Amino acid sequence: MKALCYQGERDIRFEDFADPALASETDVIVKMDLCGICGSDLHIYHGQGFSPEHGFCVGHEAIGTIEDIGKDVHRFKKGDEVMISAAAGCGRCPACLAGEIVKCHTSSFACFGLGPSLQGCQAEGIRVPMGDFNLRPIPEGLSADQALMLTDNLPTAHLACQRADIEPGSDVAVVGLGPIGLMAVEIANVMGAARVFALDLVPERRAIAETLGAIPIDPSNAQDAIFEATKGRMLNSVVECVGADATLSMAIKLAGVRGTISAIGVNQSMDFQFPMAAALARGLTFRIALCSVQSHWDELIPLVRAGRLHPERFISHRMSLSEGAEAYRLFDAKEDGAMKMVLSS
Amino acid sequence: MKALCYQGERDIRFEDFADPALASETDVIVKMDLCGICGSDLHIYHGQGFSPEHGFCVGHEAIGTIEDIGKDVHRFKKGDEVMISAAAGCGRCPACLAGEIVKCHTSSFACFGLGPSLQGCQAEGIRVPMGDFNLRPIPEGLSADQALMLTDNLPTAHLACQRADIEPGSDVAVVGLGPIGLMAVEIANVMGAARVFALDLVPERRAIAETLGAIPIDPSNAQDAIFEATKGRMLNSVVECVGADATLSMAIKLAGVRGTISAIGVNQSMDFQFPMAAALARGLTFRIALCSVQSHWDELIPLVRAGRLHPERFISHRMSLSEGAEAYRLFDAKEDGAMKMVLSS
Amino acid sequence: MKALCYQGERDIRFEDFADPALASETDVIVKMDLCGICGSDLHIYHGQGFSPEHGFCVGHEAIGTIEDIGKDVHRFKKGDEVMISAAAGCGRCPACLAGEIVKCHTSSFACFGLGPSLQGCQAEGIRVPMGDFNLRPIPEGLSADQALMLTDNLPTAHLACQRADIEPGSDVAVVGLGPIGLMAVEIANVMGAARVFALDLVPERRAIAETLGAIPIDPSNAQDAIFEATKGRMLNSVVECVGADATLSMAIKLAGVRGTISAIGVNQSMDFQFPMAAALARGLTFRIALCSVQSHWDELIPLVRAGRLHPERFISHRMSLSEGAEAYRLFDAKEDGAMKMVLSS
Amino acid sequence: MKALCYQGERDIRFEDFADPALASETDVIVKMDLCGICGSDLHIYHGQGFSPEHGFCVGHEAIGTIEDIGKDVHRFKKGDEVMISAAAGCGRCPACLAGEIVKCHTSSFACFGLGPSLQGCQAEGIRVPMGDFNLRPIPEGLSADQALMLTDNLPTAHLACQRADIEPGSDVAVVGLGPIGLMAVEIANVMGAARVFALDLVPERRAIAETLGAIPIDPSNAQDAIFEATKGRMLNSVVECVGADATLSMAIKLAGVRGTISAIGVNQSMDFQFPMAAALARGLTFRIALCSVQSHWDELIPLVRAGRLHPERFISHRMSLSEGAEAYRLFDAKEDGAMKMVLSS
Repeated sequence: MKALCYQGERDIRFEDFADPALASETDVIVKMDLCGICGSDLHIYHGQGFSPEHGFCVGHEAIGTIEDIGKDVHRFKKGDEVMISAAAGCGRCPACLAGEIVKCHTSSFACFGLGPSLQGCQAEGIRVPMGDFNLRPIPEGLSADQALMLTDNLPTAHLACQRADIEPGSDVAVVGLGPIGLMAVEIANVMGAARVFALDLVPERRAIAETLGAIPIDPSNAQDAIFEATKGRMLNSVVECVGADATLSMAIKLAGVRGTISAIGVNQSMDFQFPMAAALARGLTFRIALCSVQSHWDELIPLVRAGRLHPERFISHRMSLSEGAEAYRLFDAKEDGAMKMVLSS
Repeated sequence: MKALCYQGERDIRFEDFADPALASETDVIVKMDLCGICGSDLHIYHGQGFSPEHGFCVGHEAIGTIEDIGKDVHRFKKGDEVMISAAAGCGRCPACLAGEIVKCHTSSFACFGLGPSLQGCQAEGIRVPMGDFNLRPIPEGLSADQALMLTDNLPTAHLACQRADIEPGSDVAVVGLGPIGLMAVEIANVMGAARVFALDLVPERRAIAETLGAIPIDPSNAQDAIFEATKGRMLNSVVECVGADATLSMAIKLAGVRGTISAIGVNQSMDFQFPMAAALARGLTFRIALCSVQSHWDELIPLVRAGRLHPERFISHRMSLSEGAEAYRLFDAKEDGAMKMVLSS
Repeated sequence: MKALCYQGERDIRFEDFADPALASETDVIVKMDLCGICGSDLHIYHGQGFSPEHGFCVGHEAIGTIEDIGKDVHRFKKGDEVMISAAAGCGRCPACLAGEIVKCHTSSFACFGLGPSLQGCQAEGIRVPMGDFNLRPIPEGLSADQALMLTDNLPTAHLACQRADIEPGSDVAVVGLGPIGLMAVEIANVMGAARVFALDLVPERRAIAETLGAIPIDPSNAQDAIFEATKGRMLNSVVECVGADATLSMAIKLAGVRGTISAIGVNQSMDFQFPMAAALARGLTFRIALCSVQSHWDELIPLVRAGRLHPERFISHRMSLSEGAEAYRLFDAKEDGAMKMVLSS
Repeated sequence: MKALCYQGERDIRFEDFADPALASETDVIVKMDLCGICGSDLHIYHGQGFSPEHGFCVGHEAIGTIEDIGKDVHRFKKGDEVMISAAAGCGRCPACLAGEIVKCHTSSFACFGLGPSLQGCQAEGIRVPMGDFNLRPIPEGLSADQALMLTDNLPTAHLACQRADIEPGSDVAVVGLGPIGLMAVEIANVMGAARVFALDLVPERRAIAETLGAIPIDPSNAQDAIFEATKGRMLNSVVECVGADATLSMAIKLAGVRGTISAIGVNQSMDFQFPMAAALARGLTFRIALCSVQSHWDELIPLVRAGRLHPERFISHRMSLSEGAEAYRLFDAKEDGAMKMVLSS
């Protein structure tokens, strides 16, 4: 088959790759129908990924059709259309049973497409371990695009908002308006935020947030603007969706008394400069986490089905898998309004 | 001054009444600007009120302008425009300090207009005890109509929804679509309900709920319709806004496994037939309560200001205080689309 | 093999019964080591059980040793010592995955020993469907007696206390001091209750509660005694562990403003006389439910292991399975201080 | 009168000081009966306090008897025995009404004894602003020592534990076993912790924690010891009661997946080295805050009264106010088992 492979910094190639095959009786082989490129794929693209290896297949967002199936898979059959969770767990260890799939005790499970141990989803075919646990049928009433957004981005935005302690009447900021940030704006609305302040350096992205009802804020002036808008109270909840030190520091400044900052951006610092005295004076809560995708489906599917969330709105480009290299280039450069990139096989 | 007084069953009269005067240095005298008629005023109108007396002034929803003020009132001055909480507390006892104003330990406080002990708000002037605690300035950015809805109806709907355990993604029903029920529909949306099923015998009221995004349900067929719509799971949360035995029984039937029924309608039965075996099998939670209005203002005001709640939408009639008798008649008969009746002085 | 079988009102017999055998590749056959008699077994004993049939094997509390195992059981092997959950679920339906095992969508699963569809645990051998889901190894550091209490009684008491909204500093009552009630006293202490009032008609049972730190209360005088002890505030939380109409009514009377009543006793009434007006005035929460045993193990096991809970304290009699008829008689008559009856094979 | 005054680094003097007098009609003058020295007083003692001034009176923990009272104080009279909250609020601003007294909007209120703006409590007489809000009668059934512990230390320990997300069954660590740390051990027990690991460099302090049921841990080996005791899961909740960078870093290392670290120690760093990548991988929650003392009284008083908390256990020395300089010296040097120092007038 063909797949997108990482061959070095800014070098993603559409090339031949070994066909996926059942390695266990709990495996499922899925023919990819749609896959997405995630902001975290750019870490790999920039040569700052999670594995030193080259030549592995990338990507962790996909939906598709079941082609082959192990004997110990009970909940699916060939031909079923399914969503693949970006986070693959064994489904049996205490972490998985508690919904903390990203901390699965079994080292052979993890996230797709971060290295050779679990090949990625930007491929014509995908081997999914422990299919009963890591797949779900495309929910009735949802479009293929919506289902694709449920494989990673929407659950990630949801986790970030849940951990931000957003309540009806809260004033909220979302820092970083890529697809996850914009979905966080939608979710903050669903959770009852009175106002959502939307920050991004790119004016076009702020403009999209404004169409969702958010108040666009230029980050260069954010602290003053929010101070004024809130008469000095600052914010109940700040959702950080970038992962840079600068955006984290900004997020902490925007929280008011007993406020919460929830970070979902991947920050790999071990010595981030945390303003402890300021946090003490304001009595802050700070959270950061990775997303266990499956644990969010039960709450999100009814909201998408009912039309309260439209994560598919943020798809900006539809290309074929064979155009993957160009898709990565556009997305990285934020050219041509690149937002959510979707590839079909 | 003139006021609306209860003179017997279905006999509300606009008549002369003693001018209100400061009885304590913590009192405030408010000139009424707008007042409302509440569904619970109809209990009095029907001769089933809370006091056997006649001749007292009725009503517990009003906004106005401060005319006189005791020396120990610190947060207000003459001329301030204020909302009056329907529930008047002493502000100093443990119940008031805990926000449970309806259970104020001081017997001289309670709700306005239920009897002669605390004269009502459907009057040209109103004596408000413990002004610092029971008044609030009309919030910046809110209209007079919106402020009036904050004196009783919107907080009551809010309490009902809070106690219904509504979460993002919940399926909810609201039983009874008077002003409080319709406000509950709006609040359930703000709290993230995936779907709100709206039940009322009156088709016009169901139609209003539908314009708010709810799914209108004819009560005669509610259990089957909701069974089908939810594929048998029934509902997470049911909000009961009527207070009749029949609507309470209906509400209990609509809740699914581990569901919650929250009743706000005034039910005075001491032997309601509760289906304990059904509640056990489904693991239900049942709640009922009266509203401590002031405790809800901090959460509701930002939501009204931000345009997420529009409680003023449900005002159907604007009349003068002198037309009070006719206003009660229309409201009781549900004539002429009577929904929320607002009277001005 | 031999087993205790229901042969009619007050007629439990130790008699020959078909050996259990694997009916599915997910089944496990367990040789019983210890089993218990539960208060709810007395419903069957009194001829008021859940099935009209005779001749089935009773009981739903047991620990034992695995004797045979289906091919699709992954987490256990022959010889493992295990606890059997009283509530058997399929482990795959939405209800089971959400921890609501008592509402498993698969009708062939349920509770052991309520009728012929799933034979009981008061037997030398037990067929456990879906072993991976319904069994757990006897936890390290726990005695066999403690493990046995985890198969039903302790989780049931825990559910009741959780649903009673007990918080540090709460005043709590437990109504009914059988084994589950006494375990509820212990759990209320662990949850931080300031005071636990313990009610039972039997003075000896009140005396046991007193040794656990509770305040013994004679039910004939409970309302006055608790009014005085709380200076009229009454209680935050009331846990009802009997299931009779009289004890439920008592429990509702003991709750104070915004208090919660949590019932775990099996009440089969469809027209319980609920004092709605009183509940409205006090703003009560009422809950009732059956227990999904497995969902409580993760929280309870560390508490038993750490010595914070001692459910084995309430074992009053140890007899052999062959003495089952006499054990039922003693337990039913509350003779000889009968509290928790444990039978060995 | 006489008072303890700060006259420079390690220079606390018992000397003449102006008698306190009513400055407002809401003030109360309290004759001090008992006062305490707090760990945070040592910041001042070390010359690292919150004000550059000298000559002000120190201390923020005291109980006493009302000597004089303004006309607008309604809840107290001369001769009443009272506790003084360390955090003095205006009682009228939104922060105070929300229980966030440490963030009172009125700059003239704050904490006693941090500088000349609000003189301290280690004095024969104390002016308490807004007496109705900042005082409470010594609760019935509590000893003077217990009441003194409620003026600062016990509420602070309580806040720390509340914000650590301790639940029944949790494994908890308390880092730093001064009086607040030891009270946190007691509170963690009341909140249902399965195990409390108690860390301090001083073996005698660990030994006291052990008498409370905690597991003593030498900080030099803490990470390994707790890894082993928890089989690698590490802790649900870590309570940090020191405020040093080293203890904060240690606390973060001890938290497991989805764990919470709650810091109450005063850390004044603006660039604490926060291990963001580790926090991301484990999905941590981090909180830090100052205590609004009054907001904790309603929950704590019943627990002390019922004998579930014994904060007075940690009083190590009783001296007279005139011996204040020596008391500070002993406490700072941790000489003679110095733990909680109490001074009488």
